[in-house]
Amino acid sequence: MKNTIRAAAIAAALLPGAAPADEPLTLARWGSFHVGGREVVVSGQPIREVLFAPGGVPARVDPNGTYLMGGMYAQYMVPAPMRGRVPLLMWHGGGLTGVTWETTPDGREGWQHFFLRRGWATYVSDAVERGRAGWSQIPEQTGGQALTLTLDNPYERFRIGAGQGSYRRQELLPGNQFPADRESYLAFMRQVVPRFTTTDALALDAYLALLDRVGPSVVMVHSQAGLFGWRAAQERPEAVRALVLIEPAAVGDPAKVAALRNIPILMVYGDYIAGDPRWPTIRANGVRFAEAVRAAGGSVDVVDLPERGIRGNSHMIMMDRNSDQVAALVQDWLAAKGLWQ
Amino acid sequence: MKNTIRAAAIAAALLPGAAPADEPLTLARWGSFHVGGREVVVSGQPIREVLFAPGGVPARVDPNGTYLMGGMYAQYMVPAPMRGRVPLLMWHGGGLTGVTWETTPDGREGWQHFFLRRGWATYVSDAVERGRAGWSQIPEQTGGQALTLTLDNPYERFRIGAGQGSYRRQELLPGNQFPADRESYLAFMRQVVPRFTTTDALALDAYLALLDRVGPSVVMVHSQAGLFGWRAAQERPEAVRALVLIEPAAVGDPAKVAALRNIPILMVYGDYIAGDPRWPTIRANGVRFAEAVRAAGGSVDVVDLPERGIRGNSHMIMMDRNSDQVAALVQDWLAAKGLWQ
Repeated sequence: MKNTIRAAAIAAALLPGAAPADEPLTLARWGSFHVGGREVVVSGQPIREVLFAPGGVPARVDPNGTYLMGGMYAQYMVPAPMRGRVPLLMWHGGGLTGVTWETTPDGREGWQHFFLRRGWATYVSDAVERGRAGWSQIPEQTGGQALTLTLDNPYERFRIGAGQGSYRRQELLPGNQFPADRESYLAFMRQVVPRFTTTDALALDAYLALLDRVGPSVVMVHSQAGLFGWRAAQERPEAVRALVLIEPAAVGDPAKVAALRNIPILMVYGDYIAGDPRWPTIRANGVRFAEAVRAAGGSVDVVDLPERGIRGNSHMIMMDRNSDQVAALVQDWLAAKGLWQ
Repeated sequence: MKNTIRAAAIAAALLPGAAPADEPLTLARWGSFHVGGREVVVSGQPIREVLFAPGGVPARVDPNGTYLMGGMYAQYMVPAPMRGRVPLLMWHGGGLTGVTWETTPDGREGWQHFFLRRGWATYVSDAVERGRAGWSQIPEQTGGQALTLTLDNPYERFRIGAGQGSYRRQELLPGNQFPADRESYLAFMRQVVPRFTTTDALALDAYLALLDRVGPSVVMVHSQAGLFGWRAAQERPEAVRALVLIEPAAVGDPAKVAALRNIPILMVYGDYIAGDPRWPTIRANGVRFAEAVRAAGGSVDVVDLPERGIRGNSHMIMMDRNSDQVAALVQDWLAAKGLWQ
């Protein structure tokens, strides 16, 4: 495996326009904003006295009134010089936040670093309900109970360990590239946040508001955000210059495949899918949707990494030890589509 | 007011070592990590089938097992060249996240930008229970109901509007510097996240873990984080090289004031305190604690901004229109303490 890692590192270093991981990064500007959301009025609730700080002064909190909810957070970094022709929006998966893109569990640079070093202006967001977007227990927003994951759940569901019970046995899928030593795995689990399964419509609205604010962009999505990437591209085809889907967990609207016909699309799947209880179906749904987009005149490239000789990838491809190698594949694809100079 | 703003901008630009706001920023490195937390075991709960994505494949979710909770998020940016002698940790207030420091509601650069431009390595964190730290409805972590704020609440409680009912009237305190035009105020409210009032001990533990990881630092806190700043300095006096408290809402442990005697401490309060129903008491508690620290041999500078001719500051001093002017005051104080070269 060491050789594979070294080969990937060399490949990344040799990619045209790549600054090595230890070189400084110059940002023309950076910052954050929130976008989207709507006002929700609540009434009929009792007023509370709240002691916010021990030894402080109680404050009167009236829960009745107008709330702002369903907004989303985005942090942007614009490198100098800029080489991506449009910004790169990076949308994380379920139970996670934008942290997915800015780090790896074993402390290497993340995909956000990778693309910044190649001159892409990156916009890393936290979707509605999680991270710096905030959430709310007010039913008008979330309508349900949030789900928090136990330590074994992603280990066994994200194709890291060898199926049910593997966390207890600490049994990895053979050759798995996810950094699953104890310290790294816990670093990953600290990134996991509670998840509602009832906020898809709000999240899509906020992503559309993000696209409306940033303008034409490359949209890169992971897992749950497959849903938002496909649907946002269908709603704003002129604003999505390319769509990169890393193991999308859902498909778009079958009635609107024609809207995608002018958008270059790349779908990337990792390893161990055939032996998983859920991923063969999820992948087959994705490939079938891709075929429908092609039948409507669109262009979709489906990459199964093992077929390219890239083995051992879990569901968290951007965190796996060969993350730079897969990022380079995506970068090459974007460059080939004329989106990078 | 325009003259005040211009004067502040000029003062900031003339400060030695300040790069203008439109100049690029060079980072030697940047990234994030999570720190702290502990394992919590839950048992006796029913197993659920969860459909994570519409049209996806249901997954079996067993809520029994081991959770990792009480961790915290920190994003670091290390500028080149570096001029701060130690890193600068920036700890946000209640119902907020690290976004407090990286932006202003009207789109100017935040205090994080200000200190980065002067060569401070910044560590901006999201405390336990909020933002990218995640939260949980599992009682072992939060033990209570989260509080979400209505639009009028910070307007009236953070000394922006003229007291109760002022949001409806859109009546600002005279001369208020908070950017409270409708668009800016909503931009601020989108940053507000739900808040538990039951996680202080967990948050303090995580902040101690952060200090243990980063090492000796300047700790800058706002509002609720006053509690964590004071207490963390009392638990790790050797790791806190200076403590800057922006309108701290709570004090430290009165039994441990002697632990603070070698730490230079700065407390900063804004305007309109005398006319507020809560802040005269909160400030008096803080000043009384400062006197106890001084009596134990410590050094505490208390700055009431109006006494320095700096008027109109709300509770959100780092977001007010004169934010750069107050940041420059803090920067000068840090430089005078020998923490900047």
